[in-house]
Amino acid sequence: MLRIAIAQLNFKIGDFESNTSKIADALFTAKNQGVDLVVFPEMSVSGYMPDDLLDYPSFVEKCEYSLDLVAQSCQGIAAIVGGVMRNPGKGRLLQNVCCFMQNGRIETIIPKTLLPTYDVFSESRYFESATSQQVISFKGVNIGIAICEDLWDLYNNFEYTKSPGEALKELGADLIINPSASPFHLGKDSHRNRVFSGQVNRFNLPVLYVNQVGVHTELIFDGSSRAVNNNGEIAVQLPDFESCIRTVEFGENGFIPGENAVSFDSDPLPQLYKGLIFGIRDYFDKMGFKKAIIGASGGVDSALVQTLAVQALGAENVLAVMMPSRYSSDGSISHAQALSKNLGNECIQIPIEEIHQAYENSLSPYFKGLPIGIAEENLQARSRAVILMGLSNKLGYILLNTSNKSEMAVGYSTLYGDLCGSLSVIGDVYKTQVYALCRYINRNEEIIPNDIIEKEPSAELRPEQKDSDSLPPYPILDGILRMFLEEFKGENEIIIEGYDMHTVQRVLQLVNGSEYKRYQAPPILRVSSKAFGKGRVMPLVAKYP
Amino acid sequence: MLRIAIAQLNFKIGDFESNTSKIADALFTAKNQGVDLVVFPEMSVSGYMPDDLLDYPSFVEKCEYSLDLVAQSCQGIAAIVGGVMRNPGKGRLLQNVCCFMQNGRIETIIPKTLLPTYDVFSESRYFESATSQQVISFKGVNIGIAICEDLWDLYNNFEYTKSPGEALKELGADLIINPSASPFHLGKDSHRNRVFSGQVNRFNLPVLYVNQVGVHTELIFDGSSRAVNNNGEIAVQLPDFESCIRTVEFGENGFIPGENAVSFDSDPLPQLYKGLIFGIRDYFDKMGFKKAIIGASGGVDSALVQTLAVQALGAENVLAVMMPSRYSSDGSISHAQALSKNLGNECIQIPIEEIHQAYENSLSPYFKGLPIGIAEENLQARSRAVILMGLSNKLGYILLNTSNKSEMAVGYSTLYGDLCGSLSVIGDVYKTQVYALCRYINRNEEIIPNDIIEKEPSAELRPEQKDSDSLPPYPILDGILRMFLEEFKGENEIIIEGYDMHTVQRVLQLVNGSEYKRYQAPPILRVSSKAFGKGRVMPLVAKYP
Repeated sequence: MLRIAIAQLNFKIGDFESNTSKIADALFTAKNQGVDLVVFPEMSVSGYMPDDLLDYPSFVEKCEYSLDLVAQSCQGIAAIVGGVMRNPGKGRLLQNVCCFMQNGRIETIIPKTLLPTYDVFSESRYFESATSQQVISFKGVNIGIAICEDLWDLYNNFEYTKSPGEALKELGADLIINPSASPFHLGKDSHRNRVFSGQVNRFNLPVLYVNQVGVHTELIFDGSSRAVNNNGEIAVQLPDFESCIRTVEFGENGFIPGENAVSFDSDPLPQLYKGLIFGIRDYFDKMGFKKAIIGASGGVDSALVQTLAVQALGAENVLAVMMPSRYSSDGSISHAQALSKNLGNECIQIPIEEIHQAYENSLSPYFKGLPIGIAEENLQARSRAVILMGLSNKLGYILLNTSNKSEMAVGYSTLYGDLCGSLSVIGDVYKTQVYALCRYINRNEEIIPNDIIEKEPSAELRPEQKDSDSLPPYPILDGILRMFLEEFKGENEIIIEGYDMHTVQRVLQLVNGSEYKRYQAPPILRVSSKAFGKGRVMPLVAKYP
Repeated sequence: MLRIAIAQLNFKIGDFESNTSKIADALFTAKNQGVDLVVFPEMSVSGYMPDDLLDYPSFVEKCEYSLDLVAQSCQGIAAIVGGVMRNPGKGRLLQNVCCFMQNGRIETIIPKTLLPTYDVFSESRYFESATSQQVISFKGVNIGIAICEDLWDLYNNFEYTKSPGEALKELGADLIINPSASPFHLGKDSHRNRVFSGQVNRFNLPVLYVNQVGVHTELIFDGSSRAVNNNGEIAVQLPDFESCIRTVEFGENGFIPGENAVSFDSDPLPQLYKGLIFGIRDYFDKMGFKKAIIGASGGVDSALVQTLAVQALGAENVLAVMMPSRYSSDGSISHAQALSKNLGNECIQIPIEEIHQAYENSLSPYFKGLPIGIAEENLQARSRAVILMGLSNKLGYILLNTSNKSEMAVGYSTLYGDLCGSLSVIGDVYKTQVYALCRYINRNEEIIPNDIIEKEPSAELRPEQKDSDSLPPYPILDGILRMFLEEFKGENEIIIEGYDMHTVQRVLQLVNGSEYKRYQAPPILRVSSKAFGKGRVMPLVAKYP
């Protein structure tokens, strides 16, 4: 019988001291509890993913040093710890490794074989692949280590040319341990279930999946580590979006189901809600931020972001700023006020009329005789951004961006205006999902005033403006966007699904025509399988198909 | 004797119609001139690099269709044409290929083996490597095709595990053709000389290097194609930064030196000057832009950008906007006016005092009692950005960003203020290089008023402000930045080079502390081996070493 501790911890990129001390703490506690082996996630000492910090030899040296340091704590207990080491062979300078440690030293170094290089991943940028696998014999159990992607050989849109899992099976592994850094998105968990149940079945081996938790710029790592038996049974499942260490026993018949096996909430709305709140909170924690500022328009997007921010940071740390213009409706102001009252956060009002007027005076000699249009609308959005950034700079509040994914997609936002912010909270949440989340938040009581949810969406940048003047209804827009952004369908393939040709053409033109705006957008909390940002790299100079 | 045409052409990403018609034109003309083989650059039909457009099957189908179409033109002439095709085997879905075409069809498909995945390159994100090499026999010559990186196996900071060149040599190649998409940076050409002279010597084979020309968002492809004999002699060298088709004859003793062999200007300043002008011009051409707007501060950075813009676009297409504040010196206005007079472009003045005052009035209740600082400075920079973007939106001018690399590095710029723009012209040019370029521009006559070059740099955002109040002298700053950014040296390694410890620490803190600003910066024309932007990916949530 092997007692294995699953150390689902939250590491900070490059914070070697804090990361190694978390690891050492876990080892110390586990040893006292009679644990044989502690498994930490992929790249624990460095955090995942340091990106081009890996180009710095001094960074890599610190990482290697930290692994050595951690190994010294492995007396009377063994550990599997992820990190980065120099590649001893030809090829790229580094390898993504898991170290098997015991007796105070690193006994075996297992490099990763399959290097995810798609979407938000770019491991081939840094690492050389392992050329072979090996199995570690520990207390009578043959342990195969497959690092994260190493167990996903069949589960992308292409099949890798190698299968580390197959190789481990052939080498006689009794158990595959899968230290991971696998980010959350909606639907990821059912995908993981498919992967793990597929692989335990294929190899007839139990799998222990140990994932990081925490926010690393755009990416939200959700934990949700689990021990899966070779019949597909989940013996132990750790919670999502929180640090957690849990022990599982491994015997002749695989993992012994623990009393702590939890049934996992896979309903998308609560997951999305939890994920976004965790996203804000951990981003702020790691950046050393405390207080958030939000432009409160009285619309549904800012209402949702404000509610999530209050959940994440506390009402006392959120400042809502209403900045009515000559085109703002009375409703907008009273709705925004009602929301802040419900949430209990501070709310101030700074009208932009004087500023708007000053810009008009300055620009009128050059605007004279030309029709009123986008330029005038953008002036208002940008005036508001300057006010918000002024308050941010002066009072130390961090600006949260409130654009949703549908707007981001079609460029229905002002660059250097409402596209400003340190973090985009709902830039990966479609407008239809925004509504669903608001209704979910209100499921027990009216937190977001129903008037906000039910009124017709408007940017209020000119008289009587409605979103529907320039955009198709959101359910249609979002349907087209999903196919284009997430399923990589082209114009004709979307039209065949039953959408109106002109609408599809117009939407795709808008998406392609606003790449330049997204190039300068804030980092977006990623909650879908394809978010704007580092996971979707588009040329600006191009003729889009 | 083989007559080979080097088709150094300018393609647009995704513009299959225009790209294939350029290729067909070149084939038609070459055939009339008795050429046997036309060599086009890497990924000619698609342009390099389509990035995630490659995730769209409809894009790849168009690419394959274009290759077929081009092959049909190859009657009585042969061609080597680069593109993207589906991978017929296991692994990633696509391959980066060069097609050998004759008799109206694609006769041989050569996939690329070494996939650059570092700095601005991310080919492993899309392509599967070739597993073997082959040689093409054409009119008695055994041609080996090594696509771009395939010939750089020894010339990165690591050695690849494969050498396509060695394999081609073993297969009996008489000549290596190297279709490429190799972007310009200062010093790249001498690096290329090292590579080509090294490889012709190593393999004892002549090499024909055929490079793209053109601007693809950040990247400037410079052409500079060449035919190199196995003794290292450059038989033919094509110009840099322009489209050009030139024929070279290949016989038993290699390439016959043409009367058109040019001696190449490798002096860095003229290259930088030419490259930046070409960068602006081709970016504007490809984006369909005509007119540029610049915030003219009277300082050296905006003066340089304005001069380059006038060179690239013509004085009639450049609008300089002076936006004096209460802190602007008289000199700034008169210097900016003198520059526009020298260059012959339109120059207007829009004072920001009224706007500045309106912001102060609106924010004073919240700023009250707090010391004056960054917030007040940023208000001015952002007010100017709003004016420039207003003129841009209304009149169709495209805003050029004027921040230099030294400022970008240390965050000496205002996000949503002077960091705005559609294109950063000198964001990869250090301040010391800015001065050198200005002096180079003035080498024959005073185009940029000497007062601008000689006065002490100041942002003029508060009374008596000087850059030197908050930054070390630029030669020292730039020295530290080069080591940190381009040589990946850490703090201690820079200090050992003789720099003051506190200065080094402060500079590195400033660089690390402004990652969040650069995340939202415009695309930067890349002219160094390590520019900010897609080639330098840093986490925001991190503890920097």
